[in-house]
This record gives sequence, structure tokens and C-alpha cells, in this order.
Amino acid sequence: MTKFTIITLFREAIEPYLKSSMMYKATEKGLAEFDFVNLRDFGLGPHKSVDDTPYGGGDGMLLRCEPVFNAIESVKAKDPEAKVILPTPVGEIWNQKMAKDFVKDAHYIILCPHYEGYDERILSIVDYKISLGKYVLTGGELPALAIIDSVVRLIPGVLGGEQSAEIESFSDGDNLEFPQYTRPEDFRGMKVPEVLLSGNHGEIKKWRDEHAGKTS
Amino acid sequence: MTKFTIITLFREAIEPYLKSSMMYKATEKGLAEFDFVNLRDFGLGPHKSVDDTPYGGGDGMLLRCEPVFNAIESVKAKDPEAKVILPTPVGEIWNQKMAKDFVKDAHYIILCPHYEGYDERILSIVDYKISLGKYVLTGGELPALAIIDSVVRLIPGVLGGEQSAEIESFSDGDNLEFPQYTRPEDFRGMKVPEVLLSGNHGEIKKWRDEHAGKTS
Repeated sequence: MTKFTIITLFREAIEPYLKSSMMYKATEKGLAEFDFVNLRDFGLGPHKSVDDTPYGGGDGMLLRCEPVFNAIESVKAKDPEAKVILPTPVGEIWNQKMAKDFVKDAHYIILCPHYEGYDERILSIVDYKISLGKYVLTGGELPALAIIDSVVRLIPGVLGGEQSAEIESFSDGDNLEFPQYTRPEDFRGMKVPEVLLSGNHGEIKKWRDEHAGKTS
Repeated sequence: MTKFTIITLFREAIEPYLKSSMMYKATEKGLAEFDFVNLRDFGLGPHKSVDDTPYGGGDGMLLRCEPVFNAIESVKAKDPEAKVILPTPVGEIWNQKMAKDFVKDAHYIILCPHYEGYDERILSIVDYKISLGKYVLTGGELPALAIIDSVVRLIPGVLGGEQSAEIESFSDGDNLEFPQYTRPEDFRGMKVPEVLLSGNHGEIKKWRDEHAGKTS
């Protein structure tokens, strides 16, 4: 069982994704579990504040240490082995090998920061700093979903065709995808390559090998 | 006005994200617009089928040309200038410069494919092939959200502090972020660097320049 606990202020924005399609099937089969912690519940003062202005000046509001540590520790109190993931632009760029390594009997806590930033000391409680890529998002919620999706679909039994997860692009770190075609044979004058209609499996394999990584 | 029309089978999974937080504010201010087309409406036969098995054999189901072309053309009939984005592992890796280039008065149609693939001939109607990174997701829905989020937050007027979008990491293609701190000065023995409390703006700028890209 791979479990993810998401610490966020925007549960309503992302929970529907985890309740649909493949992610839903994974939970129905008992292969994955998703849980949420509302960071606001750990906010400070009458307004349950979770952020504050930066020392030294500057725009934006930073996530404060206290609510974050308390939220994480509320989860770890029940599962001390849980690991903490922080989506951040300074993290390691997520890739398929990392996704494979995360497929195990484990509990991951994903802390979703504001786009504006977080108190540096929060890093002391983080096990994995992960970046989706070299672009800026408004928060950690989409990285959380992308990490979860890419890991959960690799859990044995989640995908319908057992092989599908393995033969896809990036399985070995590179794009090995070849051009694929389905019906009709002729669509507006664009035709399926003859060899794929031949039934000659040797020739088909040869064509696909030659065209791997060469889609138009 | 930057408009996105998402062609998907899983509207319910992703629409809540676009109705929350910053994305919602952008639409409320009239700076962005999001629309959906249900690919199923263009499905074939009594089961409104949108996919079929690959010629030449293999696992998985591929998106068929007819429903996709018809769905895209239904949007282009009303707006011939609309550009088509396909999230695909063989696309150009999305980055902050591309996000900036997409901020304009334009209409983007994002086609969300299955993870299993699509008929190669669909590429003939696509303007931009985009990959979020070197990992595999179950479908194009999360890439669609990430593209939209990273573009919309750069539209002038969307973010609260006008400067925020610009001073962040990646604005110039690299990580320029420096460590940031907020209250309290001492959290469990972890202290804010003295210089940030000094009020000496010259020294603070110097410290931040020295620590740019060096968060722990």
C-alpha cells in the first residue's frame, strides 16, 4: 500500500482528480490511499494565519514554521516512518526513475507551499525536495497530483493491461515511443503505413524499432 | 484575454482546480477564460467510442482521428485562429520562457490524450506538442492544468503583488531564489540570519545576492 497525505489549503481544488479515473481505481483496489490535512487547522491566532511577511523585506507571504511543523507532526505522530515531500523550484527535477523508486509500501506526506515561498527552516523537516520542471506554478497542489499520478499508475495492478506501464516512453529514461495508428486506414488521405497492416510481426517490430523516438 | 478550451473525457476531475484560488480570480477579473469540450460528444457509434486498438498489435487503446478532429474543428468553427496544444511525452519540455510567450490575447485548445497514446495522424492538426517533463502521467489533464496555471499567473493583474511574478525563481530561466525567513526569529533553536533583521538594505541585498540559488 502506497499512501499519500496531502497538506494543503486547497483540498477542494485537487481532491476530485484523485477521485476519478485511474486514481480512483487504485484506491478501490486497495493499492493506494489518499488523505488530506487542512493546513488552516494548524494556523495561528484568531485568523488561523499560516503565513507572514519576509524578514528583510520583499513581496509576498511566506509559509510559517509553526503551522507546517505542527501539521506534519500530527501525521507523523500516527506514522513516524512517513516521509515528507516538498514541491519546490529548488528541488530535484522529477523523472520516471524517481517515480519508480517511490513505488513501495510507504507513506508520503506532501506539503503544498504557496507560490510565494516558505520559511527556509521548513526544509529541516523535509525528506525530498522535488520540482516538476523549470516553470513556476501558483502552489504545490499540481506538483502533488503529478507526483501521485506518476507513482500510482506504476503500482502493479493499477493499470488494466499489465504491460502498459512498462512499454511506454521513458520506462528506461528515454523516449522510446514509436508512431501508432488505429482505424480508419485512410483518414482524409492520411494513410496508415502498409507494414502495420501486413500481419508480418517481424517486419512490424523492425519498423517500430526504426521509428522509435521518431514521431512527427 | 487568454482563453483555454480543454478537450477531455474527465472535466469533473480538473474543473474544480480552475474554479479555485488564483485561477478563479483570473476569470473573475476577466483576464482569463476556461471552457470545456467533452470528447465523448464526438465519439463514434452507439457507445460513443473515442479510441481503438493499434494496427500492428500492442497493448492499450489509441485515441482515434475522427472524434479528435471533429472536436477540435467544432471549436475552430467559432474561432479559426485558435491554436491546438497536445500534451505528449514527445513534446518540447515546458519551461518558464514558453509560459511567458503564451501570455497574449489568444485562444488555446488543449487536447488531453489517454496515457496509452493517440493515432499519429492527430499530430497534423496540432500546433504545439508539449511535455511537462520526463515522466509518464495517466493522461493530458494534469499537463493541461500546469500549462494553464503557469501561463495565467503571468497575465498582468492576476497576482496580487504586481512584482511577485517577476522576482521569482526561473524568471530569467534559472533559479535565482534566495533563502527566505519569516517570524519567529527563533524556531526551536533555528535562527533567522542576523543580517535580515538589521534593517540595512544594502547588506540585505548583498546577502541575498550571495545566497541566490543556494537554499539548503
